[in-house]
Amino acid sequence: MPSQFDPPSGTRDLLAAEVERREHAFAVIRSVFSRYGFEPLQTPAFERLDVLLGKYGEEGDKLVFKILRRGEHEASGEADLALRYDHTVPLARVAAAYGSQLPTPYKRYALGPVWRADRPGKDRYREFTQCDLDTLGSQSLLADAEALSAHHDTFAELGVPEFRILLNSRRVLAGMLEAFSVQPEIGAGVLASLDKLDKLAPAEVVSELTERGLAPDQAGDLVAALTGPDSADRVRVALSKTEEGTAGLDEVDTMLSLLAGQIPADRVAFTPRLVRGLSYYTGPIWEFTAAGIAGSVGGGGRYDHLLQQLGGPDVPATGTSIGIERILPLLPGAAASAGRLDVAVTVMRGDLAPQSFAFAAAARSAGLRASVYLGSSGKLGRQLKWASDSGARWCLIYGEQEHEAATVTIRDMTSGDQAQVPVADVGTCFASIGREAS
Amino acid sequence: MPSQFDPPSGTRDLLAAEVERREHAFAVIRSVFSRYGFEPLQTPAFERLDVLLGKYGEEGDKLVFKILRRGEHEASGEADLALRYDHTVPLARVAAAYGSQLPTPYKRYALGPVWRADRPGKDRYREFTQCDLDTLGSQSLLADAEALSAHHDTFAELGVPEFRILLNSRRVLAGMLEAFSVQPEIGAGVLASLDKLDKLAPAEVVSELTERGLAPDQAGDLVAALTGPDSADRVRVALSKTEEGTAGLDEVDTMLSLLAGQIPADRVAFTPRLVRGLSYYTGPIWEFTAAGIAGSVGGGGRYDHLLQQLGGPDVPATGTSIGIERILPLLPGAAASAGRLDVAVTVMRGDLAPQSFAFAAAARSAGLRASVYLGSSGKLGRQLKWASDSGARWCLIYGEQEHEAATVTIRDMTSGDQAQVPVADVGTCFASIGREAS
Repeated sequence: MPSQFDPPSGTRDLLAAEVERREHAFAVIRSVFSRYGFEPLQTPAFERLDVLLGKYGEEGDKLVFKILRRGEHEASGEADLALRYDHTVPLARVAAAYGSQLPTPYKRYALGPVWRADRPGKDRYREFTQCDLDTLGSQSLLADAEALSAHHDTFAELGVPEFRILLNSRRVLAGMLEAFSVQPEIGAGVLASLDKLDKLAPAEVVSELTERGLAPDQAGDLVAALTGPDSADRVRVALSKTEEGTAGLDEVDTMLSLLAGQIPADRVAFTPRLVRGLSYYTGPIWEFTAAGIAGSVGGGGRYDHLLQQLGGPDVPATGTSIGIERILPLLPGAAASAGRLDVAVTVMRGDLAPQSFAFAAAARSAGLRASVYLGSSGKLGRQLKWASDSGARWCLIYGEQEHEAATVTIRDMTSGDQAQVPVADVGTCFASIGREAS
Repeated sequence: MPSQFDPPSGTRDLLAAEVERREHAFAVIRSVFSRYGFEPLQTPAFERLDVLLGKYGEEGDKLVFKILRRGEHEASGEADLALRYDHTVPLARVAAAYGSQLPTPYKRYALGPVWRADRPGKDRYREFTQCDLDTLGSQSLLADAEALSAHHDTFAELGVPEFRILLNSRRVLAGMLEAFSVQPEIGAGVLASLDKLDKLAPAEVVSELTERGLAPDQAGDLVAALTGPDSADRVRVALSKTEEGTAGLDEVDTMLSLLAGQIPADRVAFTPRLVRGLSYYTGPIWEFTAAGIAGSVGGGGRYDHLLQQLGGPDVPATGTSIGIERILPLLPGAAASAGRLDVAVTVMRGDLAPQSFAFAAAARSAGLRASVYLGSSGKLGRQLKWASDSGARWCLIYGEQEHEAATVTIRDMTSGDQAQVPVADVGTCFASIGREAS
């Protein structure tokens, strides 16, 4: 039973630990992308409705959050804006809007929330983060390899456990259809069935293919070539007989040779059965998997004419996308939450407060996280409990005794050891603690 | 005439330089806030409509972006969600939802976009960033002083030029009304008029006050006390005659004594005419101004019962808010855009591409930003132009000659100097460049 104080269905409140975990991951991602020369782009949360609608198919359109017109138009019940559904349609609009003001090629990343009115479920949210990396304006396979490599380095630096890369090309798939004499008019459907080979048993896929119109032998041979241990070799033989297949193999081999040396050989594998659902891909495609996660945790490919279909210019493009919500739970625990404070400063009496306030400032000047006690109790026990609850490593105690002796007591909250430090030396003391802590 | 490719009215596409400028400022803000022991909170972009409506007054409600219901309910033309209008109402909801799971006091900051359907104008956007810092659950003036001090340190670290802090207390204002015998029933209106003293001439405010029902002498004396060079002293004398005024003065003086030593004395001034519009403040209030900017660039105060009015628990609260869009243009230029790349790597021939790709990876391993040429030209001049356009500091040239000699040419793009480096030494060479650059 949702409470009236819950966030809207499918959305989350991110409290401190979760925000910090995410921000840490985002910082790694931004740093890797920047090292590859990709630059950030941020578009508004909403776009004009006509920019978004009709770009995601009928099913996608239903998932768009639409924003009601305002003022006198509100009563019309019509929408004129909609929350962004992905980062690709905004990219198409930006490419059209800024054209020659953008570098060539335009290598950009987008890292931010998108919104889809999907049925919420485990790890499926209505507000979730998409992280896209795309290169517009290059036909070179180097651009594909660079995107894949940047994605790889990101996963490696984040510490995603045992991840693997499946590599294929849409032209390999086209070549396979040709090599196995699949009628062109059912090609798309056949690929949709082959896309299920990672979820269904081969026999089930064969049965789907025969329903789509393949002869039983034809379906069996196709599936056999795409599965089993020597699949890649059998596919190579089949592909060598067709022009499109040869071109597709060339793409895959070029990608592999570019990545050799950058990516451990056992992490990337030519995977002829990889389809990657969306029909807009035109060249190399890839997917990332990780230990213990069904399906992919990211992927991408070349999509040379998609931007034009989305209302942008007709430029070659390739890109890769990371499923942030899927990978965050996989990451190694962020250095066991270091607590909110390094130094907790007591306030034992109102007239001593300015001095306590100044001690906290001195700790911050040394780069430490510090705060004074903000509660109303004058009892030391109560204030030490607050210091402990704050995860503080040290507590600075400044009461009547200390005031009279012109000292402070610095208590190590882990060991309970205490030391007296002259007030005049507090700054130096924090500076040395700060150096140790950093 | 807006183009079909423009972002929606009142919103912006943030290209690389602008994103980097903002992210730099956000990093400074997060770092200062964290040093004070404030923790981040992120709430969803939208809330249920009933959570938002009725919280901002009639005018505010009109500015809320409402989201149409979905699926079969879309045709109703009704909204069930709305984009967040500020960070305070979500904070009230979170305080109610998570209660005892949150630390006491709960010191949180929120840094993210909010949306208001205001008429767009210069520096006034419909999507803009709010940066709020609030402490819930402390009645202590130390919490107010801490919030103000954190805000101060943020401005100082950001490099906001010549900023000043105006400090007052709502209780000072209440005492002034009492001391000048203002009828309680017109008190709010009188404060609203006094709030214009930074924009209107004193005589104009006096005339407004008489229209509100003050006697001409009474209005003249009140305005005279609040303006002029010795205002603070004259106000002190007046306030000492009333209980509320004395309490208000105590608040101000306590704040000033806490801040003394942390904040240069000429940066903060008791400013009795400061009203800070919103009627929900209950204690100290403050505003930040900066050279060359009319009005404030941030401010805050104590608002002890507001959260309850907004649907949250009745907890004492104080906080401060930074006007990101107003301060960003004031900040010193971000280290004159360092370009997108440190090292640009040529690709002179397809068969040399894997080696070029590996050189770029070696540069990135040394922490440098590096990319290979992704265009289609095999001409060195063309590739050098790309290197220059990318702002690269060095260009690594690897053509036929270099390939045969097992060397690379490293060209300093500033001086045009070139050096030959054996292929085996490229990694070491980048490592030394990387150390220099960092």
